[in-house]
Amino acid sequence: MSEKTAISPRRDEDFPEWYQQVVRAADLAENSEVRGCMVIKPWGYALWERMQAVLDGMFKATGHKNAYFPLFIPLSHLQKEADHVEGFATECAVVTHHRLEKTAEGKLVPASPLNEPLIVRPTSETIIGATYAKWVSSYRDLPILINQWANVVRWEMRPRLFLRTAEFLWQEGHTAHETETEAVEETEKMLGVYETFARDYLAIPVLTGEKSESERFPGAVRTYCIEAMVQDRKAIQAGTSHFLGQNFAKASGIQFQGRDGKLQNAWTTSWGVSTRLIGTLIMAHGDDDGVIMPPRVAPSQVVIIPITPKPETRAGVLEAAHKLAADLRARSFHGEPVRVEIDERDIGGGVKSWDWIKKGAPIRLEIGPRDIESGTVAVARRDQPPKQKEFLPQFEAVDRICTILDEIQAGLLERATTFRDSQTQVINSKEDFYAYFTPTKSDKPEIHGGFALAHWNGSAEVEAKIKEDLKVTIRCIPFEDNPEPGTCIFTSEPSKQRVVFAKSY
Amino acid sequence: MSEKTAISPRRDEDFPEWYQQVVRAADLAENSEVRGCMVIKPWGYALWERMQAVLDGMFKATGHKNAYFPLFIPLSHLQKEADHVEGFATECAVVTHHRLEKTAEGKLVPASPLNEPLIVRPTSETIIGATYAKWVSSYRDLPILINQWANVVRWEMRPRLFLRTAEFLWQEGHTAHETETEAVEETEKMLGVYETFARDYLAIPVLTGEKSESERFPGAVRTYCIEAMVQDRKAIQAGTSHFLGQNFAKASGIQFQGRDGKLQNAWTTSWGVSTRLIGTLIMAHGDDDGVIMPPRVAPSQVVIIPITPKPETRAGVLEAAHKLAADLRARSFHGEPVRVEIDERDIGGGVKSWDWIKKGAPIRLEIGPRDIESGTVAVARRDQPPKQKEFLPQFEAVDRICTILDEIQAGLLERATTFRDSQTQVINSKEDFYAYFTPTKSDKPEIHGGFALAHWNGSAEVEAKIKEDLKVTIRCIPFEDNPEPGTCIFTSEPSKQRVVFAKSY
Repeated sequence: MSEKTAISPRRDEDFPEWYQQVVRAADLAENSEVRGCMVIKPWGYALWERMQAVLDGMFKATGHKNAYFPLFIPLSHLQKEADHVEGFATECAVVTHHRLEKTAEGKLVPASPLNEPLIVRPTSETIIGATYAKWVSSYRDLPILINQWANVVRWEMRPRLFLRTAEFLWQEGHTAHETETEAVEETEKMLGVYETFARDYLAIPVLTGEKSESERFPGAVRTYCIEAMVQDRKAIQAGTSHFLGQNFAKASGIQFQGRDGKLQNAWTTSWGVSTRLIGTLIMAHGDDDGVIMPPRVAPSQVVIIPITPKPETRAGVLEAAHKLAADLRARSFHGEPVRVEIDERDIGGGVKSWDWIKKGAPIRLEIGPRDIESGTVAVARRDQPPKQKEFLPQFEAVDRICTILDEIQAGLLERATTFRDSQTQVINSKEDFYAYFTPTKSDKPEIHGGFALAHWNGSAEVEAKIKEDLKVTIRCIPFEDNPEPGTCIFTSEPSKQRVVFAKSY
Repeated sequence: MSEKTAISPRRDEDFPEWYQQVVRAADLAENSEVRGCMVIKPWGYALWERMQAVLDGMFKATGHKNAYFPLFIPLSHLQKEADHVEGFATECAVVTHHRLEKTAEGKLVPASPLNEPLIVRPTSETIIGATYAKWVSSYRDLPILINQWANVVRWEMRPRLFLRTAEFLWQEGHTAHETETEAVEETEKMLGVYETFARDYLAIPVLTGEKSESERFPGAVRTYCIEAMVQDRKAIQAGTSHFLGQNFAKASGIQFQGRDGKLQNAWTTSWGVSTRLIGTLIMAHGDDDGVIMPPRVAPSQVVIIPITPKPETRAGVLEAAHKLAADLRARSFHGEPVRVEIDERDIGGGVKSWDWIKKGAPIRLEIGPRDIESGTVAVARRDQPPKQKEFLPQFEAVDRICTILDEIQAGLLERATTFRDSQTQVINSKEDFYAYFTPTKSDKPEIHGGFALAHWNGSAEVEAKIKEDLKVTIRCIPFEDNPEPGTCIFTSEPSKQRVVFAKSY
């Protein structure tokens, strides 16, 4: 590619740095003065709001209600589930005081130590469990199907915008059930919701499956996940749904009188996706000119760019732009009015155009003085080269807008699927496996292999060795109706089915 | 009143206790195991979601965008504005460590102390100011019009659900402007948004005006407020809008090159409302049977209660209920489908009915086997006595639903306004003033006076004395086009205009 690109470096030059530059160029987020905490800027937050709106609708359609639980967790609560606290102990922000006071030198220092330290929630199983314990006494009180939209904090030594931040935004569903079967069904159902959301809204194909024991959520019996592949061929865990068995119910005391009159522990689940989805979306679809927003979650699906070179024609062009916007908003795209923004800034059309390319608006419509005379508009699609435009009569552009949005959405999914499939390999020997994940000297930048489907004996030791040698982990044990048994390529021991290995975020 | 009420005690017996019991009976919120932090239960959270949706639309319609800033504020940042840190120092939750570790005895304790303590945001002027300082370099970068939906923490020694909690949910708008005039206009505009929201959606009439210096937001030049009166005649500050002048811009370094080429400080504002609005709504409208939700923010505007005494007719009744719900949802109330819920619980109709009375659903529709035969439905309004019902043909109930909702909404506003006005008194002497706010022995429970309109010389000492003597404060200096000067009733000194005194939450 010899054309100058809006983002430097290009993806094939330095993918991690390309990512940082895209986040900056698209004005999505930035680092704050608080280590590891990000500022989500309006365009990034608007994308999150779109994701929230869709997911929230899907949660409610599956019978869940929203509620809100405390930001703080008493240390003693977090400790109740041993594996859980073990898993989060190294990343806990701890509140120890509840006041500031001035020293004799006029320096402000923490004062009034708390009797018990409070942890800023890294996740809410324990504090919500303590609440459910109070709500449940009979099987009639079950199920509890609740979701929370919240901020959580997990201290990060190597923060990266959206992908790994000390504070992030997420939703966490927490449900309690009478039977194991019901809880497992819930866990699977919500994974299905995430899979559908990723595919139909984010245009990202995901693998679904179970995590191996070493990658499991601390305290869970089983962790299901959706795993996406991004353009450097690494995997990213985009969402998880945990079957918690009775572990947290026992720890928190969620007990109920069953239909048989006996006291028993509830079966619980939890499931979550976070602002990490934004990072996933950027890395899945972005190109060397910036972000590409899938139309179904794009904050603005169509951006109208009035071209106003001369002051005397500006008013007329703006008027035409508003008329066009109104016509577009009257169209319904998947049941909602088309989201249209007019960029009225009094700067050059080229600058505006590039801004929206970098921000990833699916469709740009340029309208200038000559278009008004001819009744036309220049249509540019984000999934086509920056300079490619189609001049259409305005009424035709309006008529076709939803079709084009659907084409872009479908095209993104198809491209991501083709890429993922082309970078997924069945591997049948340890030698091939190591070769697949080992960069050769000519690889520039480092090649991360892709998804390797290989047989594995189920041993955590084998996993640990592979991780140490190659930084490769088992991303998931895919759900298979008819798992094909075989021989572990590392130990020659029996394997129940192929699992998915990859480097990951 | 001799009828048994759903809430005990009644309002006239013990208002504060009545409030706690209503929150519990309506299943809105409860105390958590973390001192001062509440659990907002699904019905309470759904109300908050309705408030959010409306306000968010109003903010966006006035040109604001949402964004998200860090939960934590470095101590050094908070300290930059002297009055500000002074105002919040006694209520700061302080994070001092970022890890937990096990002692030799296996006890978990905070580890890895931070170089600089972090404050859990009590409000975000300073951390957002630090960010704006990076965004602004020219007058072309202004205005910045941003809102944030977030949780904040202000340590509370005497927490009370929704009214005063250590953690609460709110929105905080933060804007930066080129000129003082613009910033003042913004401050006034957003106060206007709050006033409109309170009146048209919460059905609460509010006074608007400015706070006296001693009630001002720490660091602000002027604080505007909306003040409501609730049924024990105390005032509650329901929202504030602050003109911050250049104080925070100076503290955070929000500087820009002006049109004249000179470097200058921006003019900033901030404005917020919180989950306290829920407490305000309960105390403004609730009666001795529970909450009354104003229809325009009610999570469910109509609750259909299937009466299914016999198993053999249950299916038919439920089918009719669903048909009725679909017909109702096809109606548009102020531009949105009517929000309908069906209470399908397999319990007695009376129990269900009382649950929804306590929760404050504006309209209850009871439908049973006989109604199916006759094509009727029993319509009960929350603003009428619990047992009052009107039997209407189903089609007529559907036809009239929006009219009834509007009647309830208007009736609540009218009742609250009449009450407020009847408890507002012009007072012209210190003696009358003290008498107005001093309970006599026969007052049971304590009478709080109401709103007193009196002349005041503008002195903070006078304010302090009144507060000490009577627990009465100046709620606001009302906006007046033609303020009527007079003589301070406490000092006989000149007064510019009457101000509003009251006891308050």
